[in-house]
Formats: sequence, C-alpha cells, structure tokens
Amino acid sequence: MRMVDLIEKKRDGQSLSKEEIHFIIEGYVQGDIPDYQMAAWAMTVFFRGMSLEETVELTLAMAQSGDQLDLSALGRRFVDKHSTGGVGDKTTLLLGPMVAACGVPIAKMSGRGLGHTGGTIDKLSSVPGFRVELTQTEFLAQVKKIGLAVIAQTGNLVPADKKLYALRDVTATVNSIPLIASSVMSKKIAVGAQGIVLDVKYGSGAFMATVEEARALAKTMVDIGKALGRQTIAVLSNMNQPLGRAVGNSLEILEVADALQGKGPADLMEVSLELGAWMLVAGEVVPDVETGKVTLRQSLENGAAWKKFLAFITEQGGDAQAVIDRQLRVAPWNLPILAHESGYVQLFDAHKIGVLAMVLGAGRITKESLIDLGAGVILAKKAGEWVEAGEPLMQLYSSDKETLAEGLKLAKNTVSVGTEVPELPSLIEEVIL
Amino acid sequence: MRMVDLIEKKRDGQSLSKEEIHFIIEGYVQGDIPDYQMAAWAMTVFFRGMSLEETVELTLAMAQSGDQLDLSALGRRFVDKHSTGGVGDKTTLLLGPMVAACGVPIAKMSGRGLGHTGGTIDKLSSVPGFRVELTQTEFLAQVKKIGLAVIAQTGNLVPADKKLYALRDVTATVNSIPLIASSVMSKKIAVGAQGIVLDVKYGSGAFMATVEEARALAKTMVDIGKALGRQTIAVLSNMNQPLGRAVGNSLEILEVADALQGKGPADLMEVSLELGAWMLVAGEVVPDVETGKVTLRQSLENGAAWKKFLAFITEQGGDAQAVIDRQLRVAPWNLPILAHESGYVQLFDAHKIGVLAMVLGAGRITKESLIDLGAGVILAKKAGEWVEAGEPLMQLYSSDKETLAEGLKLAKNTVSVGTEVPELPSLIEEVIL
Repeated sequence: MRMVDLIEKKRDGQSLSKEEIHFIIEGYVQGDIPDYQMAAWAMTVFFRGMSLEETVELTLAMAQSGDQLDLSALGRRFVDKHSTGGVGDKTTLLLGPMVAACGVPIAKMSGRGLGHTGGTIDKLSSVPGFRVELTQTEFLAQVKKIGLAVIAQTGNLVPADKKLYALRDVTATVNSIPLIASSVMSKKIAVGAQGIVLDVKYGSGAFMATVEEARALAKTMVDIGKALGRQTIAVLSNMNQPLGRAVGNSLEILEVADALQGKGPADLMEVSLELGAWMLVAGEVVPDVETGKVTLRQSLENGAAWKKFLAFITEQGGDAQAVIDRQLRVAPWNLPILAHESGYVQLFDAHKIGVLAMVLGAGRITKESLIDLGAGVILAKKAGEWVEAGEPLMQLYSSDKETLAEGLKLAKNTVSVGTEVPELPSLIEEVIL
Repeated sequence: MRMVDLIEKKRDGQSLSKEEIHFIIEGYVQGDIPDYQMAAWAMTVFFRGMSLEETVELTLAMAQSGDQLDLSALGRRFVDKHSTGGVGDKTTLLLGPMVAACGVPIAKMSGRGLGHTGGTIDKLSSVPGFRVELTQTEFLAQVKKIGLAVIAQTGNLVPADKKLYALRDVTATVNSIPLIASSVMSKKIAVGAQGIVLDVKYGSGAFMATVEEARALAKTMVDIGKALGRQTIAVLSNMNQPLGRAVGNSLEILEVADALQGKGPADLMEVSLELGAWMLVAGEVVPDVETGKVTLRQSLENGAAWKKFLAFITEQGGDAQAVIDRQLRVAPWNLPILAHESGYVQLFDAHKIGVLAMVLGAGRITKESLIDLGAGVILAKKAGEWVEAGEPLMQLYSSDKETLAEGLKLAKNTVSVGTEVPELPSLIEEVIL
C-alpha cells in the first residue's frame, strides 16, 4: 500500500477501506508517512468528505493509536462530556460537581484553551495549589473516592489526533466535519466512555458559525458513537453571546462558585442543567431528562454539588478556602465600559468578547503564549436587559495597564444599546440522539 | 502574510494576488514554507484551479526562482520546443538538426525519462562518449558555433519547479493544469525563449488521456506565453500508439539516424515536420508553416540535417562514426512476437508498449532506477498494416534473459490483429496559437 495512491483515491472521490484508513493513521503516528502526504490527504478529505463508515474507522484508528484508559475499576457505567468550545463556557466545572453529587462519576480529561475560547484546565489553574496533572493511578483513585477528577490530557492518549490536529492547524484543514468529529470522538472512545454527552455550540463565538453546520457535526458524532456502541447525545446550543457573565479564568471559577451556591446566571444554568440531565440519563440514574433536571436542582439546593466541588478542589491539592473566601487572584487593573445612552442591551458578540478577553491576557494567541489567569471581562448586563446612560455595560480586568488601554479600544464595538428589546434565539436549539 | 491564510484563501475558491503567489514560491524555495503547507496548497489548486492571471504569476515566480539563461549572445531570436512526453517520442533529436540546418539555433535543456515515457538525455547517453552535461559557457559556445546543443537540465535553473514537482509526485497533485502548465512554461521562460513550440500529446501513452484535457492544457500554456510576450504555438498530437517504430534509447537513436537520411517512419516525420515548421515560423526564417515544411524537407534531401546531427554528436564528445556505422550497443537478448493469425494490425497501445519497454530495462520505474540503454522494442508493423500469421509483430530487446521472459508475457496484450482495417485518428489534431 502506498500513501500517494490513497491520497489519489480520496482525491478522486472514492471511499477508503478500513485497512487503508488504519494504514494511514498508524503510518502517520509511526513517522512512516510524512507530514506533507498527510497534509495533502487532509485537504482531499476537506474537499471530498468521508462516509460514515470511513469516519468511524478513522475515529477507531485514532483512538487505538496510543494508550487507552481502563475504567472498569469504577465498576459502573462511565459517562463523558465534551463541548466544542465557546466563550465563557464553564459548564464542565459546574456540571462535574452536580452530576457527581447525583451519583454519576466524572473522570474528565480536558484541554487548555486556544484562541478566543477558554480551556477548563486553565480555569482550574487559577485555584492556588490545584494540580492539573495526576498519574493515571491517582486519577482513578480520586474518581473512585469522590466521584470527580478533572486533569489535563496526558502524554500518549490519542497521539494520532495530537499530531494530526497540529498539522491541520497550519494547513487550513481544521474545518472539516469528518476530521473534527473523529478528533472529538476518538478521545471519548480512548477514555472508554459508554455514555457521551456533546455540547455542540454554534454562533459567532463558536467553531461552527451556523446551526446547520453544528447540526451536521453533531449528527456525525452521534452516528459515530452509535456505530461504536456508545450512547451518544448531542445538545445544540447557541453561542452568539458569552455563557454567563464572566470570561477569564479566575473570574469564571468565581462565577462557578456562585452558581453552585444557587446564584448562577440563567443562561449558564439552563445549558448546564440540560447537559447534566442527559449525563444522568446516560449514567442510568434517572429515567428521563426532566427527572434529571429536578435531581440536579436538588443537588444545588441541598448544597451537595457545592460540597462536591470543594472536595474536588481539595483532593487535587487546591485551596478550597480561597474559593470559599473568593480570594482568587483577579487582575489588579480594571475599568468599566459605560453605556453612552439608555436602552436595551442588544447582543454582546461572543466572538468579539472572546477576542477582547484574549487580548486582556486571559487567552492564548499562539500555543506558546503565557496567560494571565486573573484577566478577563465581567458583563454587567446581558442582552435584553435595560441599561441607563452612564451605567457600566462591562468591566475589563488586566494585569497590564497598556493591555487594558488596548482592550478599551476593542471593547467599544462588542455591544450596542437600542430602543427595541432584542429578539434572542433560544439557548438550546435541539437535542440529537 | 501567513501561508496558512493563503492556503485557506485558495481552498475557499478565491484568487491569489501577484504578491501572494511570489510569497509562496519564494518562501518555498528558501525553505521558509514547509513541504506540508505546500502540499496542502497544491491540493487546493488541484480542486480550485487557478485563473490565467494567477497561473502567469506562478510561472513567472518559478522562472525567477533561480538562475536564468542569457542567450542575447546568440544575437538572434531564440526558439525552444517542449513535448509533454510520449512513447517512442524522439522528435527533439530529429527536429534539432533539421531546424538548426535551416538557420534557427537550438539550445535545448532536456530531462531524463521517468515511468513509461523516454527522455532525450537518456537517448543521447546511448551514444558512446556523448556528454550530456556542459558548462553554461560550453553550451552557449557550441550553439554559437554549430547552432545546436542539447544538455541535461542544470543545477539552479527553476529550483522552485524541481522542488515542487518532487513534492507533487508523492502527494497526488501532479494532474492539475495550472501546475503542469506553469511547470513547463517556467522552464521555457527561464531559458529566455522568445518563440515556444509545444508538442502536447494525448492518448493512452500520453500524460493527458483525452484530447479535451490536452486542449485545455495547451490553451493555458499558449495563454501564459502570450501574456509574457512570447510567441507560443501548441500542436496537439495523438499518442495512442508509439511514434515511429523504435522504443528504447539506442534503438531510437538508430531510428533518428535513419530518419535524417530520408528513411524515417511516416508518423514520426509528420509530427516532426509540423513541429519543426512552426519552429522555423517562430524563428522568423520562413513566412508560413507550409514553406517551413518544404525547407525542412530540403534539409533532409540535401544531407544538411544529417551532417548537422553528426557535427552535434562530435561537438558534444560523442562517437559520430559509431552512429554512422550503426555500432551503438543494442541489448544482446532479443526475440520476436509473432502474429497468431493473419490480418490488419489494430492499434499498438502506446501506454502498454511504454510499460513493456520500461520493464525490458529501457525506462526508470523509480527515479533511482538504472536503465539499460540497449533495451527496448522495435515494432515490425504499425497499426493498419497487414501481417501474415507467423510473421513478427515486434521484436523485444533486453540485456537480461529473465527480463525478456517477463517482457514476453507483457507483450501479448499490447496489440491485436483483426479482419477490418482499423480507423486511425489523425496524428495532428489541432494547432493552437
């Protein structure tokens, strides 16, 4: 088998066989297939797509390219969750304790943020002492003990995806549904998830701009999950404005702490309850999603979720008291953006707010960027709310005065105020299962 | 400017600017743009194509990527010729002396063969002592002295094409009209040709399978030439059967010697006279192609072309007497393929004959293959001729008995004999200028 023939085959619109796909992924991971052939191949996939059968094989080949997690020690059904990424998306941190408190263990490997979307691992890093890296033994022991652990992706899990993603990033081949879907699903398969809940976001702040693209991606991922015998549920949610009010690492941890104590913003709660309820369904502790939501709300009301969060912080070496006392490091320089006129807040553009937070220091412009865990944005108002002229629309935080001045310029056109109440799309568009 | 953005731009169907195309080619030659980005970009060009403006800029950027020849010392209009490659295609060797004898100097850089098509440089290498490499000074001095020199492509002429072609070869991006056209034309521009005659072949033995593809390629190349102020003429010729009777390096030199002495096969003469006449037109020594053909025929009849060929061989260190005496090395083992029944010879399949000659040792399977200069095939009959049962259809030559046995197997289905006179397409399909 020669890689050049397989590139040509896909280029000419033919399907690749199981053997051919495994040949490509194994050869690439082993270094037998060079980057330039893989890049040409990825571009043929961009143009020609892949059948479901091909995408399933690609997912499997990638999942099998490195270590796989054995969670059988948990002795129960294991459910994992994935978000395609958004601005202010702290659902994992909220969901984890809630779902774990309701009896479904969470063993989550998360990524760092890149570009205008944040990463769960960066957010957790803003808690003093928190260890984002555990050995596999520590990780499993903690899940067994308290039902919840969240760590950074480890060394040799799905190396094919790591290598291919880095290549796609520089060859304009990121935006391909079979490549995105297999990238996401291969990681869920490699950690042994039996139930998979996917938060597929669309809109200005999401990877998929339109609901149609998001639906196509979600459908492909659900189909892959089904084909591989995993219960898979995708929730399409709107990401035209940031989720919640906080964007930035320590700022978001504080918002999660509020939310776990019953003071969460409505949109964040709606998305989190929807996703969490499906996780309880997939974890087979509730019969349906409505019962799931009731159960989750109880975990908030009776303090079980908040206690689980603090136990989780403590268990991973973090300073839970600092979280309780709201003593996380917030960037020292801050200034408000004031409304010039009174009116209804129209949409805050999620993408622009994401870029603003990144520029203030909260996100990485390149993979090598250092981030300012205390930087970010707090939205004082959300779309649809009334603001008086002179009242703050948002507050910017940065550790650097000049950066703050730069942010000020960017902030101007992230939001507008109008006389009409804006028509807002529903937050949850659809559930695909 | 970032390469990833230019890949994305072309991927999404937009045109690249002059600056962007030069950025790509210069960056690639200098090593700033890695192979994997170039491969992804080439695949976008395969799918999206290029406008004429883009293709012209690509041609120019490649032509300017290395050394360029200064032929002003010739003191006259310089005409170059290129063939897209075929089986038994020895027109350069026939045309060179004829055209030079008629007063248009030929300073030709040729390639080695790869796959089933032969290369002029390999053919010349079968003449004892012949030097295929000259310094630029020697090359120009010889053209000035006798009006004819043919050498292998030298070091730093169009390095962008050399590097890009090697990459395209292993990434399934060879078959793209803008990439092929710019590859061919960049070399003609770099050697300073003011007149360019292109032999664009189509059919089983050619790079372009159909006349439509060949026409599209020819039109693009003519348009590039015009846009760059070069008189450019493309002749579309049929390559469903080999040109002439000989396929293989020394076998073809002997056929050229015969042809220059007035005993050339009709098809070879027809194509060579057509191309040569256009070269005389482009060289401004005749007013039209018909006069050109008459002039070329005179050069054959009065012995001027044959003398020019011998002078050329001698000048480049070759043994002209060996050519006169037909003492070139022909492979020692040979056997005939006999007709099983009487009838009209249907088409000899050019591609199959090319592969057969390659297997016998006359061509390179990979770039590293050593070739057997004495191996090949002589067609005893051409399509449309009558053959008696038991008469030879062709003769196979090889230096290795086992290879010959392998060739025997392959030879069986290269030709068939039928009761009907086959309908043969005209050899010259069209002239585009």
